[in-house]
Amino acid sequence: MEEIKVFCPATIANVSCGFDVLGLALDSIGDEMIVRKTDEKGIKITKILGQDLPLETEKNVSGVAGLAFLEHGDYQGGFEIEIDKRIKPGSGIGSSAASSAGAVCAMNELLGRPFSNLELTQFAMQGEKLASSVAHADNVAPAIYGGFTLVRSYEPLDIVSIPTPDELFATVIHPQIEIKTSDSRKILKTKLTLETGIRQWGNLGGLVAGLFQSDYDLIGRSLEDHVVEPIRSILIPGFDAIKQNAMEAGALGCGISGSGPSIFALSKGETTAQKVAESMRKTYGSIGIDFDIHVSKVNTQGVKPL
Amino acid sequence: MEEIKVFCPATIANVSCGFDVLGLALDSIGDEMIVRKTDEKGIKITKILGQDLPLETEKNVSGVAGLAFLEHGDYQGGFEIEIDKRIKPGSGIGSSAASSAGAVCAMNELLGRPFSNLELTQFAMQGEKLASSVAHADNVAPAIYGGFTLVRSYEPLDIVSIPTPDELFATVIHPQIEIKTSDSRKILKTKLTLETGIRQWGNLGGLVAGLFQSDYDLIGRSLEDHVVEPIRSILIPGFDAIKQNAMEAGALGCGISGSGPSIFALSKGETTAQKVAESMRKTYGSIGIDFDIHVSKVNTQGVKPL
Repeated sequence: MEEIKVFCPATIANVSCGFDVLGLALDSIGDEMIVRKTDEKGIKITKILGQDLPLETEKNVSGVAGLAFLEHGDYQGGFEIEIDKRIKPGSGIGSSAASSAGAVCAMNELLGRPFSNLELTQFAMQGEKLASSVAHADNVAPAIYGGFTLVRSYEPLDIVSIPTPDELFATVIHPQIEIKTSDSRKILKTKLTLETGIRQWGNLGGLVAGLFQSDYDLIGRSLEDHVVEPIRSILIPGFDAIKQNAMEAGALGCGISGSGPSIFALSKGETTAQKVAESMRKTYGSIGIDFDIHVSKVNTQGVKPL
Repeated sequence: MEEIKVFCPATIANVSCGFDVLGLALDSIGDEMIVRKTDEKGIKITKILGQDLPLETEKNVSGVAGLAFLEHGDYQGGFEIEIDKRIKPGSGIGSSAASSAGAVCAMNELLGRPFSNLELTQFAMQGEKLASSVAHADNVAPAIYGGFTLVRSYEPLDIVSIPTPDELFATVIHPQIEIKTSDSRKILKTKLTLETGIRQWGNLGGLVAGLFQSDYDLIGRSLEDHVVEPIRSILIPGFDAIKQNAMEAGALGCGISGSGPSIFALSKGETTAQKVAESMRKTYGSIGIDFDIHVSKVNTQGVKPL
């Protein structure tokens, strides 16, 4: 195979109680990317549609992730990349992660899968480092593995796949304001009380158990965030109203996607997820900021051929 | 049924990464208790073997738990309790929880199970409150439910049963020094860094996933405690050597049981658990403090008839 076209999923990181460790991949929101082998060494980004992003390899997250890929293994050629960028940068649904993950997964396919998902995650994390100065894995891991992933540890990197209940749907609203990940991290407190910590790891354990058992009620009860949401939600106009109305519309839980400004809700069944979308649309309609709303199944495949 | 004799299991709380939320029940260590119905109202503790503990109902944890039981439901009689106390108080393996849980489970059996495990846990927590001034559930819940339990939340109380892999064995060494739960809590820091919190909830998620999947390696990798162990282990003579040697003997993980001084290790298979016991015996033999060592399967039933 000389060329491949892939879907690069958007992702929701943190998922309320899993700050910096949990993430999930979406199915109906994502970039498209064409990657082709070249005799020439290195990575060349030949086209970017949809967004004004740098074509220079070292300044583009997929370029940097691709370079990390090329540094390993024994492939002597290079790659060309075309990106149809449909996820807006700064939206909080893993725009940079989609490009980084898409590039390395596509390259891996073209070479007959020499690398494991864990290795691909490590390469893609280099793209994340370019985007936000920290090599996070909580968006790239679900984009690569699909479904829910847990970053158990960074040193050494340890990624755990968590099963996805069949009827779980996500609703995401993206208010068209930009919050940079780096800014959004700055406002976080560097310490938390032991009591808050206990609540958080209790909830994370509950969420993981709920996902394994397809126990939607337990999933809902566990979708609490006492660590980050109380602080970050201040940056997102209308957050409290969106959340309250989403819960009243039947969502299992609702929180900030990654570092925001996108807000996600999880629901049992597409019908409820659509009702939640409708409640978000109504709530945000009166605020006067443009927004996009998506309803999506959880994508259990990760980056996939188109 | 007018009378029942039950086994009241010892329990390991915290289990490294699950401070205040996780616990597991043991099978070969526990109290024995006889509970019988009486026409007279109230709880009467008629005999305590093995330990010098108060017979007055209000001063005895099983008495207090029993009173909480009697306050609910419509039973008009009372109960007599005889306790063969084999778990030493202050050992860190849920001595008070065994008595509290045993009492309410036995009473529930005698009355035809009017109460759920969650309700029984709430009654037994009153015993814990007497013992350590805080109504903890991380020992009483596994004693009642059996296996591993997660206290997802206290307000409202939400207990989640986590499955137990078949080959999981615990080794417990109890150095004969007393550390009171209340003292052991006092030395804990009231705050932790966000970084430490992230590691802790990453590990807790990993442990829960490992238990669901019977993934012993993942269980082992997740048995880390960066919150409590670095502080509490100072109170336990020889902790570092015990842990190092247990790990070298093949344990999946090793940590402080509850508030100590007992140290637990988890292993895959009884043979390894016995090797770990041998390594603990050797390590502690040179320290000059008396000790007990137990090897036990995880008890998946909780309090059970004898």
